[in-house]
Amino acid sequence: MQSHRSIGLAAALLVSAASAQTFQRLGTCPTLGCVFPPDQADFLAGQFFDIRLEVHAPVNGSEANGLQPDEKFTFTIAKGDGEAKAVTEYFGIADPKLERWNFTWFEDLFAKDAKTPSLVNVTSKAYRRVALYEPGEYTATLTYNNGTKTEATWLVRDLAEVRKTKNIVMFIGDGMTTNMITAARLIGHKSINGKYQSKMQLDKFPVLGHQMTHSIDSFITDSANSASALYTGHKSTVNCLGVYADSSKNPFDDPKVETIAELFYRLTGGHVGIVTTAFIADATPAALTAHTRDRNQYGAVVDSFLNGITNYTWTNWTGPDVLFGGGAEQFYSPELGGITYQGKDYYEEFAKKGYQLVQNKTALEAADSDKKTLGIFTVSNMAKWLDRNVYKDNLNKSLSPSGDESAALDQPGLKDMTLKALDILMERSGDKGFFLMSEAASIDKMMHVLDYDRALGELLELDDTVKATIEKLKDAHQLNETLVLVTADHGHGFDVMGSVDTTYLAAQNVDRKKRSAVGVYQNSGLSQYQETGNLTYTDSNFPKNWDPRYTLFQGLMADPDRRENWSVHKDGPREPAVELVEDSDDYYVNPEDGEGGLLLNGTLPVSNDQGVHSLTDVPVFAMGPCQEKFGGVYSSIDIFFGMAECFGLAKGKPSDHY
Amino acid sequence: MQSHRSIGLAAALLVSAASAQTFQRLGTCPTLGCVFPPDQADFLAGQFFDIRLEVHAPVNGSEANGLQPDEKFTFTIAKGDGEAKAVTEYFGIADPKLERWNFTWFEDLFAKDAKTPSLVNVTSKAYRRVALYEPGEYTATLTYNNGTKTEATWLVRDLAEVRKTKNIVMFIGDGMTTNMITAARLIGHKSINGKYQSKMQLDKFPVLGHQMTHSIDSFITDSANSASALYTGHKSTVNCLGVYADSSKNPFDDPKVETIAELFYRLTGGHVGIVTTAFIADATPAALTAHTRDRNQYGAVVDSFLNGITNYTWTNWTGPDVLFGGGAEQFYSPELGGITYQGKDYYEEFAKKGYQLVQNKTALEAADSDKKTLGIFTVSNMAKWLDRNVYKDNLNKSLSPSGDESAALDQPGLKDMTLKALDILMERSGDKGFFLMSEAASIDKMMHVLDYDRALGELLELDDTVKATIEKLKDAHQLNETLVLVTADHGHGFDVMGSVDTTYLAAQNVDRKKRSAVGVYQNSGLSQYQETGNLTYTDSNFPKNWDPRYTLFQGLMADPDRRENWSVHKDGPREPAVELVEDSDDYYVNPEDGEGGLLLNGTLPVSNDQGVHSLTDVPVFAMGPCQEKFGGVYSSIDIFFGMAECFGLAKGKPSDHY
Repeated sequence: MQSHRSIGLAAALLVSAASAQTFQRLGTCPTLGCVFPPDQADFLAGQFFDIRLEVHAPVNGSEANGLQPDEKFTFTIAKGDGEAKAVTEYFGIADPKLERWNFTWFEDLFAKDAKTPSLVNVTSKAYRRVALYEPGEYTATLTYNNGTKTEATWLVRDLAEVRKTKNIVMFIGDGMTTNMITAARLIGHKSINGKYQSKMQLDKFPVLGHQMTHSIDSFITDSANSASALYTGHKSTVNCLGVYADSSKNPFDDPKVETIAELFYRLTGGHVGIVTTAFIADATPAALTAHTRDRNQYGAVVDSFLNGITNYTWTNWTGPDVLFGGGAEQFYSPELGGITYQGKDYYEEFAKKGYQLVQNKTALEAADSDKKTLGIFTVSNMAKWLDRNVYKDNLNKSLSPSGDESAALDQPGLKDMTLKALDILMERSGDKGFFLMSEAASIDKMMHVLDYDRALGELLELDDTVKATIEKLKDAHQLNETLVLVTADHGHGFDVMGSVDTTYLAAQNVDRKKRSAVGVYQNSGLSQYQETGNLTYTDSNFPKNWDPRYTLFQGLMADPDRRENWSVHKDGPREPAVELVEDSDDYYVNPEDGEGGLLLNGTLPVSNDQGVHSLTDVPVFAMGPCQEKFGGVYSSIDIFFGMAECFGLAKGKPSDHY
Repeated sequence: MQSHRSIGLAAALLVSAASAQTFQRLGTCPTLGCVFPPDQADFLAGQFFDIRLEVHAPVNGSEANGLQPDEKFTFTIAKGDGEAKAVTEYFGIADPKLERWNFTWFEDLFAKDAKTPSLVNVTSKAYRRVALYEPGEYTATLTYNNGTKTEATWLVRDLAEVRKTKNIVMFIGDGMTTNMITAARLIGHKSINGKYQSKMQLDKFPVLGHQMTHSIDSFITDSANSASALYTGHKSTVNCLGVYADSSKNPFDDPKVETIAELFYRLTGGHVGIVTTAFIADATPAALTAHTRDRNQYGAVVDSFLNGITNYTWTNWTGPDVLFGGGAEQFYSPELGGITYQGKDYYEEFAKKGYQLVQNKTALEAADSDKKTLGIFTVSNMAKWLDRNVYKDNLNKSLSPSGDESAALDQPGLKDMTLKALDILMERSGDKGFFLMSEAASIDKMMHVLDYDRALGELLELDDTVKATIEKLKDAHQLNETLVLVTADHGHGFDVMGSVDTTYLAAQNVDRKKRSAVGVYQNSGLSQYQETGNLTYTDSNFPKNWDPRYTLFQGLMADPDRRENWSVHKDGPREPAVELVEDSDDYYVNPEDGEGGLLLNGTLPVSNDQGVHSLTDVPVFAMGPCQEKFGGVYSSIDIFFGMAECFGLAKGKPSDHY
């Protein structure tokens, strides 16, 4: 296995490793011959995927070799030590027509400053919707430029085909780290002399794991790529949804891989639910059905929820039973300001396919549980727990999903949406079972804008939702046949280092003196979020006071310029940095944010108005059938393989189901 | 249980909760009557502990009540719903004499600035070396001031008394978080297209847990207090070693709790080994045998390793089989500049008790494995992996353990020490079994000084040591009878958010432009620590290059002033901040550190020259007998109870062993 790979690698290191880092000619393609899926890809037996081959001819830059891109490249596949067969023979498919394009890239930041891009001419072919069935290793070989080879070792994992769970509920706390869970516990749960008097639901899970979230070609991921890894078993490039990134300009022609939702529906007729507190076309929900190199193709994402992939032959898909979230602007008519796929009204498109539509919490609760249901509750991202429950005036700033520019005052939370989704899925799925993905999206969104309090509120809401879900499944006698997973897609570099005396901070006039307001070690004291307040909740754990004198000394490790007063932002989500000159891409501290706080220069490029994702492994909490597959430390793709095996989706022979 | 507690609590909230945060009158004592161990304490059946009672009479400040401290307070203990008995009757001990003292504290930062302390007069009694044997709840009641009560609910856990493991090896990565493990993996292990080609040993453990590290009276801990929790099952106050903190001035009279090392030796005659890369009197090793409210009593700590506790009747202790680390200055004679307990030469003291002494790696390797062994390898903390293996000239700055001011050039690493400790413990312990604690201390120490590279080097060395330990135990046929735990005592708010083009950073003249050198998301690229270097290691995983052009964009979340160039510090451990005026306690960026980097103001109080600990739960990796006790999420004290149960140390009846 090592020997196969080294051919391609040795070439790679000679050519471009020294320069390509901040920018890469094409991720996963260090040589001039590119195979997607690339070397080291793992597959579920029977999982559909596309193959993309590219031959690069750099015109200038460090890799320029004076060659034209090869038009006569060949591609073979060999199983184990068996004979290498032409790809057309191996899959019994016709050879597609040759494609050509070119693209440019920068070799480093100096080249970018100097505006000296490198041009690459490309020849390419794509083979669509193939599958490998027999477990084991395969060698895929691209031969180009008169005998140069790029070899990829592919592995079809040998998994049991017996189904072990009827249902899977997969919770994703977007951007959620262990550090954040610890902080949320501290503000949401009461402790006496170091012993917590109540537990988070996450703390009660029997199995704990860590998953590595990195991209295939960069060590920091975004939510599109990481969700794709969780759902498909294939790591990819930042901004990719269910595809490997090729170098073509078309964002819809990249090589696809089949998702857990598509597989589950195609092979078992299982029912699918998708819930998020983000706009529904956002990456984490999108990656269940969309296949594009560009996560910003929101209209197309919404279309994929309903119609699946229509530009290429792909898998059978007729829409989820449940689709709940924000993002009305991708649904309502362009006449109302909507920005929709092909200008259609997607409320109508869903209605035509038999969906009932709900647009507020009241309607959600009243909706029939026997119908496919589209619930869109606001323009853009949904309101945060803190604004729905404590600083309610901020709801006036949200926009109704109708597109009429009224406020969306009656928004459900993650718990409301998830419990209704369970009602519908349990009623409709019968013996087929269901897969529900429920995302607490704004843990990430609020961490991005350094709004730690709102982020932790979202995390506590997720925990409360998980708790209510387990209770509901238990009441419905489905808990023993449901795998419940809670995980994240990546982290933010967040932690809590002590407390802040906000009264003292505000009373000091000099920044160096303001820093004395911070209490570390023994001076951090106890959590005043539980000790001092009188907010109450029915059977749920949230802070009793969001605005104590002594707050958390918390923060991110990489920031834009900002001012920190470590106090809750009562007027709605924080905006730490702003452009002083419009469209300058040059962000300074927001003069209206963090009043009385400490002025701090950022470390991120000044074009960042927000924090960024981090490297850390993220936790996985598992209970139910197959829970034992999710303990210990592993790659994010193992979540897909664990779920797929638990559902019995590995197929050693071609299925009747397309 | 709730009802008992609420009596004391209600009073506490009325009196002082609003003010006491940055400063507390006395942690775990919100009322004016103090019981140690306090409410909510858990005990191992048969574990020795002291009881300390205090009655506080605040003279001034918000709690002043004009009362004298009560001299007639009483104290009772009731098991379950049984009769409350006087403490003297319950334990069959005499009533000690009344003690009196006073102390002052500040109610908040304003009071500190104004230099207006609050004075408290105290009456107190202490009951020494008692134990509870019968599992279940106890109510301990202090009655004072004519009928005011402070009640504490104590729980003796109901644990199996059957021994399940012969040996325990407990590794502590001081300050080690999940985030750091992810970063260490990234620089130490090669990845191809997102798939790691080798695994960390930690990643191979079958069971993963998270433990909560907070103190009993503050949510950020130090290493003394956290180690005490891990070893005794009792959380305490910052700076405490194996005691609850009382308010007296004497650092040696605080109420003690018996440690895992003491219990294991007393009850089973098991053999104990202690290994650290810190000075040996540092908190993490110290907490195994020392009992003091002040971790800085280094001389007394060293004496406790050899002689146990001598100022009060306590448990039988005759010294560990193995004691390896730095800190020679607490051993060699004051004539050579040593600062030792009672001015003694502790090399001689250990020799008198039959210890062989080794002072360098060569002697360590040559030492007899059948003798008790003291290995002290340097003054202060031991050299870091990076300096021992890559930047070796820095060893010239270390000091020999002999006290002769020569350099300590031949220092062992954690792996060398741990493997020799295993040789000795396996040879000497026979059927009794052993407990070995091995600490990678400088993960923490290097994170404190923002020397991320050295910290990650220490972490990789820990992983390599764990790997070698497992191999050694396997070869010795002891792996199946040894519980191997790897955990941490607390975190630092550390993460990696991308890469830095250090060449580009250095070439820019303006800080705002330097920030463009940071690459996030897809621009983070691959780990150049594996891609570009040619350093090699036998069968171990460390970076192939510590000084690539593209480094990690890494950092802490709370810092002193500093300048970051994100490059390895080749001249030895980093010193990020210095006093411009000696003894001013006012630290600014070190003008000699981080050349060419980005100048950044800190957020910590300006008296901090280092980073500080953080809140995050830390990971626990377990394999071997009882591994299943260490999955999921729990308190740090559960590590003690898990180890104690696995060793069969719970004793439902008084033992013959004192």
